[in-house]
Amino acid sequence: MSNIKHALPVTREKDFAAWYQAVISEADLAEESGVRGCMVIRPWGYGIWERIQKLMDARIKAAGVENCYFPLFIPLSFFEKEADHVDGFAKEMAVVTHHRLKGIDGKLVPDPDSKLEEPLVVRPTSETVIGQAMSRWVQSWRDLPLMVNQWANVVRWEMRTRMFLRTSEFLWQEGHTAHADEADARSETMRALEMYRDFAEGELAMPVVAGEKPENERFPGAVATYSIEAMMQDGKALQAGTSHYLGTGFAEAAGIHYQNQEGQQALAHTTSWGVSTRMIGGVIMVHGDDDGLKCPPMIAPHQVVIVPMLRDNDEDAAVIAYCEALARDLAALDVFREPLRVLFDKKPIKAATKRWAWVKKGAPVIVEVGGRDVAGGNVSVLRRDRLYNEAGKLASEIMARDAFVASVTETLMDYQTGLFEDAQARLLANIRRDVTDKSVLAEAFNGDKPGWVEVQWAKPTGEALDKVVEWLKGHKLTLRNVPLDAAKADGPCIFTGEPAVERVLVGRSY
Amino acid sequence: MSNIKHALPVTREKDFAAWYQAVISEADLAEESGVRGCMVIRPWGYGIWERIQKLMDARIKAAGVENCYFPLFIPLSFFEKEADHVDGFAKEMAVVTHHRLKGIDGKLVPDPDSKLEEPLVVRPTSETVIGQAMSRWVQSWRDLPLMVNQWANVVRWEMRTRMFLRTSEFLWQEGHTAHADEADARSETMRALEMYRDFAEGELAMPVVAGEKPENERFPGAVATYSIEAMMQDGKALQAGTSHYLGTGFAEAAGIHYQNQEGQQALAHTTSWGVSTRMIGGVIMVHGDDDGLKCPPMIAPHQVVIVPMLRDNDEDAAVIAYCEALARDLAALDVFREPLRVLFDKKPIKAATKRWAWVKKGAPVIVEVGGRDVAGGNVSVLRRDRLYNEAGKLASEIMARDAFVASVTETLMDYQTGLFEDAQARLLANIRRDVTDKSVLAEAFNGDKPGWVEVQWAKPTGEALDKVVEWLKGHKLTLRNVPLDAAKADGPCIFTGEPAVERVLVGRSY
Repeated sequence: MSNIKHALPVTREKDFAAWYQAVISEADLAEESGVRGCMVIRPWGYGIWERIQKLMDARIKAAGVENCYFPLFIPLSFFEKEADHVDGFAKEMAVVTHHRLKGIDGKLVPDPDSKLEEPLVVRPTSETVIGQAMSRWVQSWRDLPLMVNQWANVVRWEMRTRMFLRTSEFLWQEGHTAHADEADARSETMRALEMYRDFAEGELAMPVVAGEKPENERFPGAVATYSIEAMMQDGKALQAGTSHYLGTGFAEAAGIHYQNQEGQQALAHTTSWGVSTRMIGGVIMVHGDDDGLKCPPMIAPHQVVIVPMLRDNDEDAAVIAYCEALARDLAALDVFREPLRVLFDKKPIKAATKRWAWVKKGAPVIVEVGGRDVAGGNVSVLRRDRLYNEAGKLASEIMARDAFVASVTETLMDYQTGLFEDAQARLLANIRRDVTDKSVLAEAFNGDKPGWVEVQWAKPTGEALDKVVEWLKGHKLTLRNVPLDAAKADGPCIFTGEPAVERVLVGRSY
Repeated sequence: MSNIKHALPVTREKDFAAWYQAVISEADLAEESGVRGCMVIRPWGYGIWERIQKLMDARIKAAGVENCYFPLFIPLSFFEKEADHVDGFAKEMAVVTHHRLKGIDGKLVPDPDSKLEEPLVVRPTSETVIGQAMSRWVQSWRDLPLMVNQWANVVRWEMRTRMFLRTSEFLWQEGHTAHADEADARSETMRALEMYRDFAEGELAMPVVAGEKPENERFPGAVATYSIEAMMQDGKALQAGTSHYLGTGFAEAAGIHYQNQEGQQALAHTTSWGVSTRMIGGVIMVHGDDDGLKCPPMIAPHQVVIVPMLRDNDEDAAVIAYCEALARDLAALDVFREPLRVLFDKKPIKAATKRWAWVKKGAPVIVEVGGRDVAGGNVSVLRRDRLYNEAGKLASEIMARDAFVASVTETLMDYQTGLFEDAQARLLANIRRDVTDKSVLAEAFNGDKPGWVEVQWAKPTGEALDKVVEWLKGHKLTLRNVPLDAAKADGPCIFTGEPAVERVLVGRSY
């Protein structure tokens, strides 16, 4: 297969980071905007995000969570509460200090007369404003649980950015809920985590490990933080979603009290959970290959793309009519309980160029139709997940048109399952569980695509944990999470030799 | 009917502005956020926006326009191009000048070390960044038309704000398109305008007048600006959507050139068009009454709400089961080509309280179910648009449950049509066309709900227009638009006495 000339200028093997950028660029997913750390999300990339939003939003609503919208700006004073000891506090955030631009002495500047009395911070998360709103909305046990969600842009000033994975501005959803007691709040925390796991594995075909983050990786102020971790093709871990049980600490800070059924005042227990455009980065690095993206059919903006092969002659009209009828028939089908998404690509561009553009974008099924196909009642079908045959040639298959229409929904379902199974096999094959020695642990990551190592540990806290984290950092390693479905501990802690209490995943990460 | 005790603390008649705020508050649509001019959009208000987004987005996509996402921040230098003569330029915009908060001397402040070399402006519109992107994306005639749209939050620092109508941050969509020639761009401008007109009258049941804005009301730099104007119940005009033909001026500023079929470089012709959360303000002021909002069924987050009347006794289980079965049957119905949206409101709150909450929110149909209804196989149905009978009592109607299910989709369609027809009748009755004299024009607005006056004018430009605008301003009047379907001019200009060339609407406005 090495004789294949792939569509991207760089392979995963050669330079994974450069390959990642190449997919983003060649698949028209996103591009630099000229504003440091902010990206322009192009139609194909944004279409994927719209699919993620739509499917995730349906799950969120089905859980009884209601969408709201909170302000982009947060008064600086809100952060003073958060900064226990103001003097140690420093946080990268975009700060609005003026409300007018003015031309002064031939230069356009923030008008000094428009300086705000209190600077405004562009929300890095809406935790504090939502907490404040909840304190107004929650009065009685009858108001609980209160479950809201927001789809929004947030800004965290990042020094080193990478498209989709870490950008100064990104898009996300943030769920915030308040409950009468710990049990209910913990159950919501786990519901959100399970929603993310099932979504990642179902809709994104991206296998993940769901588990609890160790203490050092907890969201500040959280009692417990859970994550889903996905394995990229270079073996690194990507945290693709988090869910936090916040105890009563946030309720106390924001004043979320309620009168319980016994007539007494009590503090609510709160949770928060979120996923972001980062998920798109995960999809790229889990499903992409040297020809570009492979888009899981459930989130592909177009599942089937029809490319006509026109020759600027009399046959063209028949080809176009044939394609239009085909597109109509396909659009009438349902797949994954939604209408099939088909595009008839009529742009005035050469068919071969269009074909390769759709290969790089990762449209699951590309159908080419020429005069000969029309005459024979056929179509040429290219599955993006089976691009080449054994001889290394494009594996276009000529099929009877009706047989294609009759089988395409099954093809898409098969494709979705296949993507998941391939990635799942890779994940399982790349988690080692046989490492019981620190030096072996360090060595395990010397290779090219090291994967993860699940080790037993005594779950140290405080300074003991800091020492472990420091040692791992020295090997560019991090603790990912304690898998919910891990086996029980039955040996010594790899770090301290004490009896282990659980198993934790160690890996390199994004 | 004056003996009716309405649900809101203030009537439209008594104080329209206070009534408007009361609807927003009592219907749980939105509330002040504590950040000047920014609102919190609550679930019912945001649910209406989600419906508007969904239905408008389907229309935008059907026109072949693709959604993208552009950065929140725009470098200050982008505005230097816009500010022809920098020294006269002053614009209310939120300006980010620092990227870090830090605790210094016990106070949290923008860290002086984090001052940005170039300040960033929070987008008031994405015109300039999208233009810049288009200049990269458009190379050849094959790339045209290029049609993109963005759903986003934007910020315009407003001194006097009013929820939904004029807020510092608001949510909108902005369509931006580039075309090979004027005819194609003008046709897109009119397509967008017609989309807005049809959407307002169809989905929002809000009659509007579509027309061209006079020169003084044009978007800066536009060759032509069109709007839809809706009449509120106090007779004032609300501009509810705009569409601009921008000629080649923006393409020139942004460098949107393309190679035409003859191999020559040419400038693209561009358009832009947008609607915002302001539409929700229009819906409130067109359809609200002294009991709150009346939500058009097409955009109501819940079209039917079932309220159980529970008595904390043995009958409750049967009532709940009856309601659940009813909700299932209703959810299986389609209306307006979508599944019917039904809510079974199980919150532990008294039935009468819930009923009035839904009346104020404007759920189109409220169904109450008690033990007696279950025994008789009935339901009590309250239509929000026919709240009281002639005796001034609540017009709840007891219906056989199956008859209700069989008729509810027709009820909702009838409701939607009825809302439009009522508002349309009001609009038509409140446009005067008999005014030919300036002093009569001024007097026409002395009453309580003055409506609009369509007058003939000579379409003055430059200073002559300024004089007209000044005179109108003296009477708190504005030129709304030149209706597309207005009759031809056949008399003298009301302002100058010259022969008129067209008819223009004059009114008070929001």
